[in-house]
Amino acid sequence: MRFFSDNAAAACPEALAALAEANRLDTAYDGDRWSQRLNAAFSALFEREVEALWVSTGTAANSLALAALCPPYRSIVCHRDAHIQTDECGAPEFYTGGAKLLLGEGEGAKLTPEGVEAALATIRPDVHQVQPAVLSITNASEYGLVYTPAQTAALGALARARGLRFHLDGARFANAVARLGCTPAELSWRAGVDALSFGFTKNGALAAEALILFDPALREATDYRRKRGGHLLSKGRYLAAQLLAMLEDDVWLRNARAANEAAARLATAAGGERLLLPVEANELFIRVSPEEAAALRAQGFDFYDWGPGEARFVTSWDSDPADVDALAAAIRAL
Amino acid sequence: MRFFSDNAAAACPEALAALAEANRLDTAYDGDRWSQRLNAAFSALFEREVEALWVSTGTAANSLALAALCPPYRSIVCHRDAHIQTDECGAPEFYTGGAKLLLGEGEGAKLTPEGVEAALATIRPDVHQVQPAVLSITNASEYGLVYTPAQTAALGALARARGLRFHLDGARFANAVARLGCTPAELSWRAGVDALSFGFTKNGALAAEALILFDPALREATDYRRKRGGHLLSKGRYLAAQLLAMLEDDVWLRNARAANEAAARLATAAGGERLLLPVEANELFIRVSPEEAAALRAQGFDFYDWGPGEARFVTSWDSDPADVDALAAAIRAL
Amino acid sequence: MRFFSDNAAAACPEALAALAEANRLDTAYDGDRWSQRLNAAFSALFEREVEALWVSTGTAANSLALAALCPPYRSIVCHRDAHIQTDECGAPEFYTGGAKLLLGEGEGAKLTPEGVEAALATIRPDVHQVQPAVLSITNASEYGLVYTPAQTAALGALARARGLRFHLDGARFANAVARLGCTPAELSWRAGVDALSFGFTKNGALAAEALILFDPALREATDYRRKRGGHLLSKGRYLAAQLLAMLEDDVWLRNARAANEAAARLATAAGGERLLLPVEANELFIRVSPEEAAALRAQGFDFYDWGPGEARFVTSWDSDPADVDALAAAIRAL
Amino acid sequence: MRFFSDNAAAACPEALAALAEANRLDTAYDGDRWSQRLNAAFSALFEREVEALWVSTGTAANSLALAALCPPYRSIVCHRDAHIQTDECGAPEFYTGGAKLLLGEGEGAKLTPEGVEAALATIRPDVHQVQPAVLSITNASEYGLVYTPAQTAALGALARARGLRFHLDGARFANAVARLGCTPAELSWRAGVDALSFGFTKNGALAAEALILFDPALREATDYRRKRGGHLLSKGRYLAAQLLAMLEDDVWLRNARAANEAAARLATAAGGERLLLPVEANELFIRVSPEEAAALRAQGFDFYDWGPGEARFVTSWDSDPADVDALAAAIRAL
Repeated sequence: MRFFSDNAAAACPEALAALAEANRLDTAYDGDRWSQRLNAAFSALFEREVEALWVSTGTAANSLALAALCPPYRSIVCHRDAHIQTDECGAPEFYTGGAKLLLGEGEGAKLTPEGVEAALATIRPDVHQVQPAVLSITNASEYGLVYTPAQTAALGALARARGLRFHLDGARFANAVARLGCTPAELSWRAGVDALSFGFTKNGALAAEALILFDPALREATDYRRKRGGHLLSKGRYLAAQLLAMLEDDVWLRNARAANEAAARLATAAGGERLLLPVEANELFIRVSPEEAAALRAQGFDFYDWGPGEARFVTSWDSDPADVDALAAAIRAL
Repeated sequence: MRFFSDNAAAACPEALAALAEANRLDTAYDGDRWSQRLNAAFSALFEREVEALWVSTGTAANSLALAALCPPYRSIVCHRDAHIQTDECGAPEFYTGGAKLLLGEGEGAKLTPEGVEAALATIRPDVHQVQPAVLSITNASEYGLVYTPAQTAALGALARARGLRFHLDGARFANAVARLGCTPAELSWRAGVDALSFGFTKNGALAAEALILFDPALREATDYRRKRGGHLLSKGRYLAAQLLAMLEDDVWLRNARAANEAAARLATAAGGERLLLPVEANELFIRVSPEEAAALRAQGFDFYDWGPGEARFVTSWDSDPADVDALAAAIRAL
Repeated sequence: MRFFSDNAAAACPEALAALAEANRLDTAYDGDRWSQRLNAAFSALFEREVEALWVSTGTAANSLALAALCPPYRSIVCHRDAHIQTDECGAPEFYTGGAKLLLGEGEGAKLTPEGVEAALATIRPDVHQVQPAVLSITNASEYGLVYTPAQTAALGALARARGLRFHLDGARFANAVARLGCTPAELSWRAGVDALSFGFTKNGALAAEALILFDPALREATDYRRKRGGHLLSKGRYLAAQLLAMLEDDVWLRNARAANEAAARLATAAGGERLLLPVEANELFIRVSPEEAAALRAQGFDFYDWGPGEARFVTSWDSDPADVDALAAAIRAL
Repeated sequence: MRFFSDNAAAACPEALAALAEANRLDTAYDGDRWSQRLNAAFSALFEREVEALWVSTGTAANSLALAALCPPYRSIVCHRDAHIQTDECGAPEFYTGGAKLLLGEGEGAKLTPEGVEAALATIRPDVHQVQPAVLSITNASEYGLVYTPAQTAALGALARARGLRFHLDGARFANAVARLGCTPAELSWRAGVDALSFGFTKNGALAAEALILFDPALREATDYRRKRGGHLLSKGRYLAAQLLAMLEDDVWLRNARAANEAAARLATAAGGERLLLPVEANELFIRVSPEEAAALRAQGFDFYDWGPGEARFVTSWDSDPADVDALAAAIRAL
């Protein structure tokens, strides 16, 4: 009964069916019939023209987006706990050619305008210091919190006012949209986002992420950077086909809802005292003693220790309801 | 009837079956049961201990290998027509941090010891010039020629004598082995190769390549570089499973033989006069007038114009025998 | 009456005389009679064999040292206020190819073993995180404090225990040695330092810094990186000659003592209450109200505002005693 | 009697006097009275507004210019014998973040429009290949030939037509202007040049080069890149002062004329048969047998062997007329 990460989930039936459908000879790289439909499909979803590229990892999507937005001699403002800072082994530094990450604070890995301002205030506007160029947030955050459209727009307005481009790491964007009941547009370009890493892998794809560029001028360089990064797959049609299949009939949203609901059930079971943070997406952070953690593991639950006396549980589109019920009961019984 | 590239082929049944088999929750990244078996499986194939990593593109495999072997301030000797020089959009330069490629000559994209020596002779051993660090060859070459074990070993000996590491771009390594009837070991580490990009994608995988390190000391840095390049897939088990499935029962070799045989039939049809180069793997380069090329296209054959009066045809593991027969007949009838 | 930085000081007579002496045709780059003597001269000073290179800026010296010690996919532990973090516009990131800086805390820009351990403890030893490779300290620190030989050795021992190389930014190394009355060896390689940026520019050179490598294996790559960074001057003899001239008769030490003594006089004038930090080298940080700062400026003193209610004064080898007396009196009179 | 390179020459009296004049405390970096005058002084020389920066090496000037003009994923068209290709140890690759150099041909290291077109024709306009972004020429060339204003303008027009920016490596720009009797403007921006590395070091400065940006939009990023490259000297005033002093009364032009005239005398002595190339600036390439070369060396002449049976002699602003006469006589006597 694994709850250690949604990135270990299986691929959903729709993604697998798309693979089978794409499994015939077609043009390589971006020339196939599926890749050619990406712009239109994502433009429809976002209610405006966008440029959409498939890549095989979220790290690639984030890094390509950041390289498009940030010159080597400038910096990216992000949360101290942002995935781009803590879990990509310096990929943003590699892809940008050595940009810095300027770290801000905020509860639950969420940046606030005040947190961003405080980070910016540490930089003197002179040639000796790396000047900020990009603001990057993660929605849902690394701690399972969501930015509302209004919160996102406030950060977008701040970014614009300070001359920063705005990147959204949406490894769990689907979970945020599912939670908030808003449109993808409201959580992205309408709030000022320039580039979005739209995650599908954690949400049921085999290994496919969408990089969405709301500024079409970013596309050309990104195409070259993608190739140069080794991320232009000759058989990219298998990725494109999965993305298209998961957009159809809102599979992406249905999958995210399932994951969120499983987490919500666990949150109810845990109750307010035990929760370290509100559960707004598909991650649950709770207080557990070492003995409690051991007891849960003894019952077959797999999860991460997060810190002393803390544990993280992640649900996914395919979390087995029986497993979730069992875990909920086990948490209640602690 | 597409003969423009093997990189557009479908995935073979064994690879697809492996995907289905891997489609259950397991540990992410390299921790799953399939990824954990790669070292052993490839060590068995190569008759010695190797380190084996999955990546999703040949460009990634090549670039990671080159970054492991070449510091930023040195150069990689390769053929003027090497894929790393002409078709990877500067990925080697990106991954190495700005190394140069030092170009050599040779018929059919094959380097000879003389060609390598001539390239090396252009560099003065002083601090103003970028000193060579790596020799890289492609087997089968970009023009469908193979290096024999003896030819490879001669280059390996030269590399060692000149203080160079030795990289083998094996996007079509399977085709070379199939052609030569030798062991993978004879074409690689026994001939002095330090790192091999062992291609599976063109040969029937969905999108999976193996990076084989014969020097275990290269592994640790490569793991970090892979992550940093965005090439550590959370669901890497889908890649590992394909590689393992294609190693079993020598599927990789059977697929390559099929492609080679199809090309051989086309070569026979074309006859000596029309052939620009011997057909030793799965690529055919022939002389065709613009009218002849148009006539072939009118019959439904898809292929690349290679130069004025030249055309390239590539067969693959799944080339339809009927299509091959039809093309052979059409070439004969020119 | 300028006290804003020692980096604006004039060149000392010995450096100028050396320039004149070197002003004749000689071999370019490192081949001239002065450059050829650097290794021996610095080896004598450090009481062991060292490799010594001239460069024209401290940023270049630091970055070349760090690039020699830190691969692109690893990190450098340094103080949050280290010059390499705050004042080199990302030069370490540029020269290393995108390494990260891992920031530690400590009073007066000095790292303690505990501060280093705390920074290291934030990094999990897995491939998703950038693993530390280097410890870098600045002596005298950016806030004018010195590390004693024992403090340095404690950090060196920690570095060794944790598998880190050890870099010393010695932009004001001379001031530290002058203050401590120890040998250069005690403050560097005897304490575990692998590479030292030994500053001469702030201490009376025209524009010349020495990069001292205690590990000779670092030399070859550094020679290439220096050229590649544009820091191999054809007329490098003018730099080498200055360095040699300032080593003779301990000019470097005499200059540093003069600067330290001027600062000490100011510290005495300020008294304990007003001092933000002890004055151990040639920098003075004091509490001043906006009105007091304005009053000092009105009397012709030039200095930096450091923070709200804080001011920085820096003395140099050529601080005019009359200016120092005047400033001391003015501070007393506040 | 050294004729091996102008980069080993002494500093001219005007440059030294400027150093002495600048040897007083002033603001650091670009804030001093000399640095502040550079834009105006070079704007006057070039008859239009320019941005002018001092750096300490030609490699730095070239690399900063190329980094300003060429993204990491594109290439720089230059001659196969260009200094940026053969003598900067990959500095352009380092500063651009891994751009490629696309090599063209031409007599005497001079590119022709046809040579440029031939190089460009090797690149397919697709994402697999590194697309050209910049054309770079050297005037006077590495073989001592000059591009006339018309030749430069023809290349500038070609660059514009092909969407390329235009860089001029002017390590010996002064020698070219001196030879051609044209204005600096005619050889640069009027001919389409976007950025010029204007050499002073070989021409009598101690270690000072001017980077001239004709497109002011390139300035801001270049300031940050210069700092990041370690090329912002705190005591940059010593460089600025030299440049200003050499602009006054056309010292730069007088020095270059002296060097050119010395070379012309040697060319006359050598006569047409012996000359490998016309002597248009301050370099002489002649045919000499090994015995002849040995005989010259036995008489005390220092020079480079250039290839089998070839020798290079370089004159400089301070070539001793007696030495030149002696060498001329010795060549005549061969």
